[in-house]
Amino acid sequence: MKIVSTITEYKNARRQIGGSLGFVPTMGYLHEGHLSLVRRARSENDFTAASIFVNPSQFGPKEDFATYPRDPDKDLRLLEDEGTDLVFMPAPAEIYPEGYSTWVNVEKITERLEGAVRPGHFRGVATVVCKLFNIAEPTRAYFGQKDAQQVVVVSKMVADLNMNVEIVIVPTVRESDGLAMSSRNVYLDPQERQSALVLWKSLQRAKELWLGGERRADAIRSAMTAMIESEPSAGIEYISIARPDNLEEIEEIRSPVLVSLAVRFGKTRLIDNMMLEA
Amino acid sequence: MKIVSTITEYKNARRQIGGSLGFVPTMGYLHEGHLSLVRRARSENDFTAASIFVNPSQFGPKEDFATYPRDPDKDLRLLEDEGTDLVFMPAPAEIYPEGYSTWVNVEKITERLEGAVRPGHFRGVATVVCKLFNIAEPTRAYFGQKDAQQVVVVSKMVADLNMNVEIVIVPTVRESDGLAMSSRNVYLDPQERQSALVLWKSLQRAKELWLGGERRADAIRSAMTAMIESEPSAGIEYISIARPDNLEEIEEIRSPVLVSLAVRFGKTRLIDNMMLEA
Repeated sequence: MKIVSTITEYKNARRQIGGSLGFVPTMGYLHEGHLSLVRRARSENDFTAASIFVNPSQFGPKEDFATYPRDPDKDLRLLEDEGTDLVFMPAPAEIYPEGYSTWVNVEKITERLEGAVRPGHFRGVATVVCKLFNIAEPTRAYFGQKDAQQVVVVSKMVADLNMNVEIVIVPTVRESDGLAMSSRNVYLDPQERQSALVLWKSLQRAKELWLGGERRADAIRSAMTAMIESEPSAGIEYISIARPDNLEEIEEIRSPVLVSLAVRFGKTRLIDNMMLEA
Repeated sequence: MKIVSTITEYKNARRQIGGSLGFVPTMGYLHEGHLSLVRRARSENDFTAASIFVNPSQFGPKEDFATYPRDPDKDLRLLEDEGTDLVFMPAPAEIYPEGYSTWVNVEKITERLEGAVRPGHFRGVATVVCKLFNIAEPTRAYFGQKDAQQVVVVSKMVADLNMNVEIVIVPTVRESDGLAMSSRNVYLDPQERQSALVLWKSLQRAKELWLGGERRADAIRSAMTAMIESEPSAGIEYISIARPDNLEEIEEIRSPVLVSLAVRFGKTRLIDNMMLEA
């Protein structure tokens, strides 16, 4: 496994690669969710590259950029064990040199949900992903369904800007009790960790209701809200039942919908989602 | 010469090209300035492609998108005569399909000069150039120095977004009397055409003063202003003496500077520029 920290080194390594390249952009602190992306990338491409970069521009000024968990040594061991060929680990100044001033903005779909609560977040995501694609020059890039809106935003950017990469979406990986894997789960104390199960439970409840014939988004949202509010430490930020392509809220479920939610447990903010489709 | 109007057709044609590709993005109504770009592209690459697309997103609501001069048949004859291999002529809906919502914004340098007078102009330019590069996949792309700020903005976008293309800047081509070639020159009536010579004359005057040792930007700007104001039909929008890299106005000329100006003649707005360098 080759590990590089500059764009020049990456480009030199990239030139050695003949055939298809699968690329997994990450912010590090890897868990089984990331590793499932690497495995999928390996199975579909001749070579596999990953990046580890905690992207400052996607964190708000009051968010957890400084304290975001980092463990590069462990990350590299895990990537090596999965057979990754090439890892790009740039310093922030390699990605945002002095005087940096170009931003990619996907409008409308970034104003909802996560984008509404985290202004500027998706501008940072779109910009860094655009840059990483231009640097990495992948055939395919792999993203987890866990960050559902990110998947929609990145797919929209790639389509709108005619980028030459195929986006592959990989199902959310969960702990055995249902909690979606996330690097931020490490912030949870044991009590919060237990409470956080309500995310998955409420999504399961939504599915049950839908399978039972409920088509009113309000009714499903109310049932989820009641369930989550029964957890004293849980604070709901949003519960959304929306069209998967443009994230517009719907009232009557007639076609596939994305149910997504963000809930705070103490200082930790978690998200999860589920598609309801035939 | 192959002429295509859809991205799919272009990509099919692009796949046939082995070796380097020089790309000349244009808005059509070609003149010797464009053709000098094509000749330069041909001389430096194995294959040459051009695009003809009057980009709606770089025109303000009160600007001349609808009346911008168009003559695709003549354009294609000229491109064929220059040995162009491939021409991409998309309809607006091919570039901006329904629901299009992603924009590339180069901040700061786009707020000055043309950007100050034409809000949103460079957002449209950066976005369409980003898209055209991703579609065309050129080795090198050719731009005229005539649109000096456009050159700075495109170069900055390519550097910031790590795009895999080399930007080549080609000197302004002028009529025998000095007027910079522009598709918009066709708007000028004979009287305005004569008055418009003051653009080039004032730049020549700036160079004379500078060669004579004048280093105060104000003094040079005043001399240019007086000369242009002596033309009754000329209305100055700006006269700038700025650093070529970030377009910041300077007071004392110590290193190379870009002298640029925008002047109205009746309803027609013309720009021109000159570098002052050792």
